[in-house]
Amino acid sequence: MKKYKLDVMYDGTNYSGWQMQQHSQSIQQLIQDAVRVLVREEVNVVGSGRTDAGVHAKGQVAHFRCSHAQDTQHLFKALNGMLPKDIRIFAVEEVDIGFHAQKSAWAKEYQYHLCLGPIASPFERQYVWHVPYKIDQELLKEACKLFVGKHDFRSFANAAHTGAAAKNSVRTITSIDVVPRENGLTLVFQANGFLYKMVRNIVGMVMNVASGKKELSDIQRILAAKDRRLAPMSAPPQGLFLMKVFY
Amino acid sequence: MKKYKLDVMYDGTNYSGWQMQQHSQSIQQLIQDAVRVLVREEVNVVGSGRTDAGVHAKGQVAHFRCSHAQDTQHLFKALNGMLPKDIRIFAVEEVDIGFHAQKSAWAKEYQYHLCLGPIASPFERQYVWHVPYKIDQELLKEACKLFVGKHDFRSFANAAHTGAAAKNSVRTITSIDVVPRENGLTLVFQANGFLYKMVRNIVGMVMNVASGKKELSDIQRILAAKDRRLAPMSAPPQGLFLMKVFY
Repeated sequence: MKKYKLDVMYDGTNYSGWQMQQHSQSIQQLIQDAVRVLVREEVNVVGSGRTDAGVHAKGQVAHFRCSHAQDTQHLFKALNGMLPKDIRIFAVEEVDIGFHAQKSAWAKEYQYHLCLGPIASPFERQYVWHVPYKIDQELLKEACKLFVGKHDFRSFANAAHTGAAAKNSVRTITSIDVVPRENGLTLVFQANGFLYKMVRNIVGMVMNVASGKKELSDIQRILAAKDRRLAPMSAPPQGLFLMKVFY
Repeated sequence: MKKYKLDVMYDGTNYSGWQMQQHSQSIQQLIQDAVRVLVREEVNVVGSGRTDAGVHAKGQVAHFRCSHAQDTQHLFKALNGMLPKDIRIFAVEEVDIGFHAQKSAWAKEYQYHLCLGPIASPFERQYVWHVPYKIDQELLKEACKLFVGKHDFRSFANAAHTGAAAKNSVRTITSIDVVPRENGLTLVFQANGFLYKMVRNIVGMVMNVASGKKELSDIQRILAAKDRRLAPMSAPPQGLFLMKVFY
């Protein structure tokens, strides 16, 4: 038995998300179908975690097992030849049979891109959240700091379809950096793991604080309440990128 | 009579190009329809020049005349509200009645983006020409230099629909800079004017030289022949951006 790791980038605009679903086109399904054809056996392509419809990845990682050795250079070329151009495999390598794309990960980085100002560039419209109203950037940074550390993030996690997240909703965010970008800001999140919709829910909250709709003290209150209904709406998917999975 | 200047950006992917055409959606038509509604009279929106289907602009300029004064701040907001998100008006200003978006221009800048390497980023696939084969970058620079200066570019101009280009095909390219970019190169063209498809035809030629299919000496020969049939195929439209019009 052999195991292979795939490093994957995708523009999520045209997909229902990473995870296979009935009646809609997922990135996982497209990759699995291509791998199955190339290795000539049934395979399960397992990702480091799901990304939702419209969410992008520059560093998604997946693995699959198969019964015989593969030419990784051939797989690299053939997979990129078969897949649509908004999904690219940028590395293929053989890994130890014990490697698991999800379970071996000890941390992840997500980035969320905000476009601030009256208009959003036509070239970025599918890769940013365009916020035309005024925000207080110092308040935004203060709000982000309140999420850093070990917390029970139940108030900022949507119910996952699998229900797995319900078991343990404690995660440790090691940093949230607020970095300037052209016409906006990027929020860089690193954590030992993220619950379903956690980044988008946190971004929704900090933007509510930065625009004066919520107070900084609401963050501690809502975290403590462990009740999703108290937190504001999620930020839209198109600003979110899975950047890196740490193994 | 008043005259207004519009600074326009667009992602050309979903359009038949700048210029109005029957049976297909042009950027000029969409802007003109929006302006007509807002100023409540018939208008002609005149651009600095056409861009083809799939070609982008970060600095297209257009003008229109109308019989009464407009609130430019209102026009800015209302036009961006009415237009699709892949077309943005980034400035509206009143100009002297003598200003003409095409005739007043004394120079233009275009950029052409090349992605070199085995795969193109999903986020750039509609904004670069992906060239996976090896090229000689020194030869590319030498080839570009041969186009700089005052030349009759008839061999590198497609017949324009208007026939206007046929009258005089002499243009002066003041510079072609070859600038590194992530995973590739950008060719920056400045000239006092460009003939129809001239940039894409020149890029097609210099890439033929850089990949060994043509010789440097072919450039002088083809320029001198003034015969479009001798030059190789155009580079694809999606790598091309109209960056700036100089007035």
